[in-house]
Amino acid sequence: MKLLEERIVKDGQVRPGNILKVDAFLNHQLDVDLLDEIGKEFYRIYKNDGINKILTIEASGIAIACMTARYFNVPVVFAKKAQSKNLDGDLLTSTVHSFTYGKDYNITLAKKFLGPEDKVLILDDFLAVGKAMHGLLDVCKQAGATVGGIGIAIEKGFQPGGASLRADGYKLTSLAIVDSMGDDGSIQFRPQDEN
Amino acid sequence: MKLLEERIVKDGQVRPGNILKVDAFLNHQLDVDLLDEIGKEFYRIYKNDGINKILTIEASGIAIACMTARYFNVPVVFAKKAQSKNLDGDLLTSTVHSFTYGKDYNITLAKKFLGPEDKVLILDDFLAVGKAMHGLLDVCKQAGATVGGIGIAIEKGFQPGGASLRADGYKLTSLAIVDSMGDDGSIQFRPQDEN
Repeated sequence: MKLLEERIVKDGQVRPGNILKVDAFLNHQLDVDLLDEIGKEFYRIYKNDGINKILTIEASGIAIACMTARYFNVPVVFAKKAQSKNLDGDLLTSTVHSFTYGKDYNITLAKKFLGPEDKVLILDDFLAVGKAMHGLLDVCKQAGATVGGIGIAIEKGFQPGGASLRADGYKLTSLAIVDSMGDDGSIQFRPQDEN
Repeated sequence: MKLLEERIVKDGQVRPGNILKVDAFLNHQLDVDLLDEIGKEFYRIYKNDGINKILTIEASGIAIACMTARYFNVPVVFAKKAQSKNLDGDLLTSTVHSFTYGKDYNITLAKKFLGPEDKVLILDDFLAVGKAMHGLLDVCKQAGATVGGIGIAIEKGFQPGGASLRADGYKLTSLAIVDSMGDDGSIQFRPQDEN
C-alpha cells in the first residue's frame, strides 16, 4: 500500500537493533485518516471471504480493527494482555513470549465472544516473529472459529513470522513489508502487487 | 444518550460490588455502529470548542477515541499504562491509583505529541472515582495543553469522579450516568437533557 509506505518513509524512524518507530501515526499518536484508508484496503482484500468478526489484541490493534470493522459492519473483539478482574466466565487463554520484554505473558478472551460460528479476520499493527499472532490463532483454534484472513499494517519481512504464516496457508496480507533497514535510516520495502 | 442507555439495559450486566459489565459492546467485544453514534454525539457537543487533538488511555478508550476523531478530523494520542521499551525521548508521566487492582501504575505519553498548541478532548469509556482521568489531566498540565472538554461513555454517578470534575469547571459530558444499580440487576440512570 503506497500510502502507508510513503508515510513510513516520511514519519517512521529507524533505530539501532532493527527497531522501526511509527509512533507518530500508528501506535501512540494515531492518524485516523490513514487508519481509515488501511481499513478500506483490508475490506477490499477480504470483503468476499465471509468475515463476520474482527479479532485483534490490545492496544494498538484496536484502532486498526475499529476502523476496518466499519467497512465490514461486523463486531470487533480484542484479546487482553493481562488477566483482568473484570473478565469472568469461561476464558480462552494462550501464552505468548515477548522478545521485546524477554518474558511470557498470557492473552485472554472471553469464550462467549468467539465460537465455531465465527469466520475471523485477525488484524494487528505489526508482525515480526509472530508470537502474538500465534497466540491469537491458538485462541481461534480453541474456540473452534475459522480464520478467514490475517491483515497486518507493517511486517518486518526479515523476521520469520510472515513466511511461517504463509507457509501454513493463511491468507496473510501485510500492507507494507520492510525487507531491510539501513544504518542511515533508509528503509527497503518488498515490492507487492496491489491487485 | 438514549441509545447507549438502552444498550446498557439490554446487554449490560450488574454484578455484586457495584460492577457494571459492558464487555458485550464497549470494552471487550466492540459494537462499532454504537461507537460511531457515540463519536457523532461527542462531535455534536464539542464541535465548536476548538478541539485539535483527542487524548485517551489504552485500551478501551482507543476505540471511542478513533471513532470520535473521524468526525473532528484530528489525531488521537493515547497514554500507555506501562513503560514501553519502544517509548523513548522525553516522556510525560503521572502515577494513577487503581482501585480495581489495589495498586499504583504509571501512565506515559511522549512529550512530542502534546504541547501548549493543543486543545484537547479527553475521552474514556468509564468514569468512576476518576483517578485515571486525573492522571490524564496531570499529563495535559505538564504539557501546557488546554483541556477543551471531557467525554465519557458511562459514568458511575454514585462515585465521586464526575462531581469533582464538574466542580473543577471542566466541560464534562457523560453519555450515560448510572446513579444506582439494584441487587435485581436493575439500573437507574440520571435524567439528562440531550440539548
